[in-house]
Amino acid sequence: MAMTGVLRPGHIQMKVLDLAESIDFYANVIGLQDMGRDAQGRAYFKAWDERDHHSVILRQADTAGIDFFAFKVDSDATLARLEKDLNAYGVATRRIPAGELLETGERVRFTLPTGHDIELYAHKTSVGNGMSDVNPEAWTPAAEKGIAPIRLDHCLLYGPDIEKAQAIFTDVLGFYLVEHIQLEDGKTDLAIWLSASIKAHDIAFVRHPEPGKLHHVSFLLESWEKVLRAADIMSMNRVSIDIGPTRHGVTRGTTIYAFDPNGNRFETFCGGYQCYPDQKPIKWTMDEVGAAVFYHDRKLNDRFLSVVS
Amino acid sequence: MAMTGVLRPGHIQMKVLDLAESIDFYANVIGLQDMGRDAQGRAYFKAWDERDHHSVILRQADTAGIDFFAFKVDSDATLARLEKDLNAYGVATRRIPAGELLETGERVRFTLPTGHDIELYAHKTSVGNGMSDVNPEAWTPAAEKGIAPIRLDHCLLYGPDIEKAQAIFTDVLGFYLVEHIQLEDGKTDLAIWLSASIKAHDIAFVRHPEPGKLHHVSFLLESWEKVLRAADIMSMNRVSIDIGPTRHGVTRGTTIYAFDPNGNRFETFCGGYQCYPDQKPIKWTMDEVGAAVFYHDRKLNDRFLSVVS
Amino acid sequence: MAMTGVLRPGHIQMKVLDLAESIDFYANVIGLQDMGRDAQGRAYFKAWDERDHHSVILRQADTAGIDFFAFKVDSDATLARLEKDLNAYGVATRRIPAGELLETGERVRFTLPTGHDIELYAHKTSVGNGMSDVNPEAWTPAAEKGIAPIRLDHCLLYGPDIEKAQAIFTDVLGFYLVEHIQLEDGKTDLAIWLSASIKAHDIAFVRHPEPGKLHHVSFLLESWEKVLRAADIMSMNRVSIDIGPTRHGVTRGTTIYAFDPNGNRFETFCGGYQCYPDQKPIKWTMDEVGAAVFYHDRKLNDRFLSVVS
Amino acid sequence: MAMTGVLRPGHIQMKVLDLAESIDFYANVIGLQDMGRDAQGRAYFKAWDERDHHSVILRQADTAGIDFFAFKVDSDATLARLEKDLNAYGVATRRIPAGELLETGERVRFTLPTGHDIELYAHKTSVGNGMSDVNPEAWTPAAEKGIAPIRLDHCLLYGPDIEKAQAIFTDVLGFYLVEHIQLEDGKTDLAIWLSASIKAHDIAFVRHPEPGKLHHVSFLLESWEKVLRAADIMSMNRVSIDIGPTRHGVTRGTTIYAFDPNGNRFETFCGGYQCYPDQKPIKWTMDEVGAAVFYHDRKLNDRFLSVVS
Repeated sequence: MAMTGVLRPGHIQMKVLDLAESIDFYANVIGLQDMGRDAQGRAYFKAWDERDHHSVILRQADTAGIDFFAFKVDSDATLARLEKDLNAYGVATRRIPAGELLETGERVRFTLPTGHDIELYAHKTSVGNGMSDVNPEAWTPAAEKGIAPIRLDHCLLYGPDIEKAQAIFTDVLGFYLVEHIQLEDGKTDLAIWLSASIKAHDIAFVRHPEPGKLHHVSFLLESWEKVLRAADIMSMNRVSIDIGPTRHGVTRGTTIYAFDPNGNRFETFCGGYQCYPDQKPIKWTMDEVGAAVFYHDRKLNDRFLSVVS
Repeated sequence: MAMTGVLRPGHIQMKVLDLAESIDFYANVIGLQDMGRDAQGRAYFKAWDERDHHSVILRQADTAGIDFFAFKVDSDATLARLEKDLNAYGVATRRIPAGELLETGERVRFTLPTGHDIELYAHKTSVGNGMSDVNPEAWTPAAEKGIAPIRLDHCLLYGPDIEKAQAIFTDVLGFYLVEHIQLEDGKTDLAIWLSASIKAHDIAFVRHPEPGKLHHVSFLLESWEKVLRAADIMSMNRVSIDIGPTRHGVTRGTTIYAFDPNGNRFETFCGGYQCYPDQKPIKWTMDEVGAAVFYHDRKLNDRFLSVVS
Repeated sequence: MAMTGVLRPGHIQMKVLDLAESIDFYANVIGLQDMGRDAQGRAYFKAWDERDHHSVILRQADTAGIDFFAFKVDSDATLARLEKDLNAYGVATRRIPAGELLETGERVRFTLPTGHDIELYAHKTSVGNGMSDVNPEAWTPAAEKGIAPIRLDHCLLYGPDIEKAQAIFTDVLGFYLVEHIQLEDGKTDLAIWLSASIKAHDIAFVRHPEPGKLHHVSFLLESWEKVLRAADIMSMNRVSIDIGPTRHGVTRGTTIYAFDPNGNRFETFCGGYQCYPDQKPIKWTMDEVGAAVFYHDRKLNDRFLSVVS
Repeated sequence: MAMTGVLRPGHIQMKVLDLAESIDFYANVIGLQDMGRDAQGRAYFKAWDERDHHSVILRQADTAGIDFFAFKVDSDATLARLEKDLNAYGVATRRIPAGELLETGERVRFTLPTGHDIELYAHKTSVGNGMSDVNPEAWTPAAEKGIAPIRLDHCLLYGPDIEKAQAIFTDVLGFYLVEHIQLEDGKTDLAIWLSASIKAHDIAFVRHPEPGKLHHVSFLLESWEKVLRAADIMSMNRVSIDIGPTRHGVTRGTTIYAFDPNGNRFETFCGGYQCYPDQKPIKWTMDEVGAAVFYHDRKLNDRFLSVVS
């Protein structure tokens, strides 16, 4: 297979301070589809054009932040192989039984040197995107309920030892480096963007002293005009916008960063070039770190390197 | 690797009736970058954001049409493996020596049951996209010279025995079926769309009695507004538009079909959803074939099934 | 006043063959707001961003077509002055009493040499656009219900003696000629586009043997992406599209022509340049009439000159 | 005439600190067309789709800022009438002879209570927009040289006594109030937006202790995607962006504010609703002044009320 092994970001479990308020926010402002609760009370959501049962799980907790981020792989065989490869690489894994998340098969979980829990899984029930598999229309009314992203796109995680996380993703899981920001020493990276596909990133990391932090979870929009619409809807709902609409230098994607009611940052993202593993990674230097992150302003805002959840 | 084996459409060689006129057209109307001529007089072009040396080759001939369509693979090892797998599958291959195309390594060529020559290759000189690999800008003036597509995206080929071509792509080369149009018999396909990546298609076929025919070569644009700009530029240059701007039902992409001065149809295409191999293929039935191809009009024009080169 | 006298197209009354079906179509597909019925059973609609009570009136009849098209003027004084000026110009007028149309003041009606009834009026109840006059949001959910045009924009009428209609509009009502298509004789116009404001047209005429015909009523959209969305919604609702999405050469606006269930053509239109009365009119000649109307295809379809209601 | 008297903003003369640098900036970054120099050394520019000879004049000076802002009127008779009306209203005027500005007729100049010089004129040579008046194309290559605005759109001026300026514009010149921001006292306005046409504003004022200040001159773009392109070009040219891309609450237009090399703020603006003089003005209150100006962030940045030239 050409597109094999790890397929895509499959789900994120996030911690929220007020579950009811957060459910309202993710359902009605972000415009994800409410897919129900499990016995623990966790709330499940999917983006309208995703076909698997869910991609976002919210858990009531005392602090905001991320519990884990997961990738779907193409088969049980791949799951077993990657588990073995991770172990051989010195990464401990454990199996989470099927059904621990609704409609989801067995998951292989491991902790990155950055302090983040990552999961792999091969099965999640396909519930469809609300359109027939036969002679479908181009979109459904769900595509205009709230911001209505198409998909969970990626996340940006903050923690130490990002080069060790990179090694696991590239040496074991088949990702490749697409872009990176190099510190003044000319060798250490401040930030890395990694892809398992032809998307400009499926996951990204920024070096940070505290482990296990979430900078943002990103949702995919179809066009720059949908980015404007997202900003309008944020304003109408008094969402706290961090920055945007603007463009990233890295990936060239257009973006808004904003905060959910718990202080978890999310992104509504569009575009990003198609890339392939035979492409030389793009390097950004610290004198242009501003343009790397916020291409129009060419300077970071205070929050980019400091505010995480 | 997650993105492995066959990476992407790498080049198409097309036959043109008047090379000088065609060079002018592809350089100034389509807005590809002229990458020079070889000893045979063939003309080489690349889209502005492609990094490899070329993606379109024009050859002076007595008829229009396609000579071959090629995919880049990720390594020499993959090239050797796929060659062996093709042979084991009963597909004869032959090696074209490195350098036969400018800046291109050895190619493995085989003929599909549809009558088309397909090539695989692992090496082509990276010449970059005109922007630095360090702290690049978001785009260059080349992005606005002519229609200025970002990339060669895919091609649609017409010929017999498309199910046999499909088998080679899916069983040997790692592609998967994304969408198909089924004939009234409920089992035979009129058309198939195949992906090697997360693009909605990297190659497609329509069943047709004559072998080896080209319906269109497709170039990728960034937005629906760029599709409008492409249509405007076509009008300014008196390009014969077949249909569009419109949307396809298949892939949901937006599109214009038009003809180069030789009668080769080309497409300026935008969008198409992201898809993955775990997604159930979408099926279209003949009563909705119109909507499958031209979503807005919901009917085929006379030329779609009859005019090929 | 700089913007004085005739302000804008205020309403159109159209004949429909099946009122219930037409109400459903204009409310749910076009996405106009249902403003109620009068004692005669006529159905009233407004576009979401219009503030006056209605702009479209549907009347059950045995044939499709237009009853009258009306312009709002800035005051009773203007209404009286224009009535007097029309009479002095040889145009007979009659007063329709206030309240004959819901929430509408007295109207001055006259018949053009083209056979169309035109009305002027100074008063219609302002019902607002659904947003507060104090600290409003940028748009409301009504902006995404159906195609949801912003406004009634203009209409294109077919009939004889268009130069006489032009004279009334320019000599008496303060309109100016923006563009015209001249017949091969180099003096007679096939078509004229007239503005009372800085819009590229508020009304237009095509020379046609039958009097009193409606080519299309046009609704304003905000962007080319909204034009795509309109085409998608037309497809989802199996609306018969005449042509588009495309661009007009005249006005440069982007457009779709489609038919309501009665065979009345309507347009979803975006853009058109800003123009002013000091601008020399643009002339199109018959060898480029195709580009004048359908800029991309540069040829008329069969229906443009023949299908009217 | 429906569109009569004052037609539109016709020109602005701005002071620049380094004329050569500024000429390069307005020609190559903003993308205005260089229309030559006069005997005083002033540099003249027009936007590509404007037909009159120029709309921007740059004058070398020791400080940045505005010399005067001018409106074109429809005739000599109007010019004479408005001059007389201004005088009758207590506004002193003086005539600037024809030819003092290149290709421009006699101008009537007066000083507003806000300290700004405003001019009216009836004649400026029409040089066309680079396209034929017969069978034109939809746009020219000039539409893609630099940011390439279509037109000078409006300006926002800072000074005292804005209600007195408003009175002159509405009582004498035929403008009407479209939106205003009211101070906490519920009667005094902080800011007013005035239109002479159906544009959401042709000129605007903010109350400010220092007279004669320029907040920004605004150039019209065609689409939100062109706003993105403008931001990209600003970044590529290291233009200092004040804010944007974003949307205004007032007018709903999309926008970028940025600074020319002299510190004169300019805007690249798109949209704004169509309005008419019969529309009730929209009022903003000080608790929502943030949303009025920057709709997405819903808060002013430090510079909006303090940085002027």
